[in-house]
Amino acid sequence: MKLYNFANATNPRRVRMFLAEKGIEVPMVTVDLMKGEHRTAEFLARDPAGRLPLLELDDGSFLSESVAICRYFDAIQPEPPLFGRNGREIAEIEMWQRRAELELYLPISNAFRHSSPAAKALQPVQVAEWAALCRERAAECMGWIDARLADRDYLAGEMFSIADITAFCALGLGTNTRTIEVASDLENLQRWRQIVGERPSATA
Amino acid sequence: MKLYNFANATNPRRVRMFLAEKGIEVPMVTVDLMKGEHRTAEFLARDPAGRLPLLELDDGSFLSESVAICRYFDAIQPEPPLFGRNGREIAEIEMWQRRAELELYLPISNAFRHSSPAAKALQPVQVAEWAALCRERAAECMGWIDARLADRDYLAGEMFSIADITAFCALGLGTNTRTIEVASDLENLQRWRQIVGERPSATA
Repeated sequence: MKLYNFANATNPRRVRMFLAEKGIEVPMVTVDLMKGEHRTAEFLARDPAGRLPLLELDDGSFLSESVAICRYFDAIQPEPPLFGRNGREIAEIEMWQRRAELELYLPISNAFRHSSPAAKALQPVQVAEWAALCRERAAECMGWIDARLADRDYLAGEMFSIADITAFCALGLGTNTRTIEVASDLENLQRWRQIVGERPSATA
Repeated sequence: MKLYNFANATNPRRVRMFLAEKGIEVPMVTVDLMKGEHRTAEFLARDPAGRLPLLELDDGSFLSESVAICRYFDAIQPEPPLFGRNGREIAEIEMWQRRAELELYLPISNAFRHSSPAAKALQPVQVAEWAALCRERAAECMGWIDARLADRDYLAGEMFSIADITAFCALGLGTNTRTIEVASDLENLQRWRQIVGERPSATA
């Protein structure tokens, strides 16, 4: 088994953080997105969409999509549970994983792709007006995650989960690329970010 | 338990179709989005985001997000399996569910929201250039789903799954609102759509 990875990309980071939480080690192969190595014939033969992360299984087949790769490892090794243990937890975590993904990560990612000169290669047609709407939406989402965290340790409740990984990596993308700022008055969000950032998995 | 629902909206439709496949009946309460009933104080007290579908559980708590609601019912009643039965199936279905959602449903939904006069109430600032990019992306995605279906009955393989529900409802939104057309030369996609459309759940 091996994981095609790039240190500086957000989706591979989500999987690395998940694996670190599980204590699972998987051999990694670097595919340098900046050098366009995901566009080589060799890589496209593995994944026609040319995306990272990509998991190569021992039977030679491939699995794409960060959360799908995480679910694969979760099925192999359920502990610690990062997708929930019973119907209610599973649903609650899926709800917050989706919100973190659709309301925070996607807007931040779109704001970056549609406004940063550095993203021009990824997104040749950049729509500034769309980037502005996405920034607003991300700010709005940070507001209600902050409210949510007023009386909870983690997004889906008392248990650290995949939802926290998605939101944490999304904010990392947003602030590292200076696409967004996390307002200093969002104290719950700031506190949560600090606590998650102290987990050993945060540097995976 | 009750499900807040609106007949004409895509996300509630995904849950209705899922429940019909499972043979689960849940009392439904209509919230008329066209009349703004999701913006009343009464509804916002249930869900501050004012979204549908929304599941009210017997303990008075609420669950939001279509796929989270589906996972809740899947945990209660695993048969028939629509999220997979083992690690490999679970991951494969998650991969295609995410692709159907992120690469097909979201672009179609964004193209609709950012171009249709009917969507102006939902999306006051419409960005035509973004709608055009989304239409292109949806067309591209239909192309590779068509290729995928050349030697498979369903998106994730031989088993009908949540991924098919998402893609089918996404195309329904796209064609009902005349946001996209499914090109007649996408024969595999057309055949799959016909077959899925004949399932009793398709009219749920």
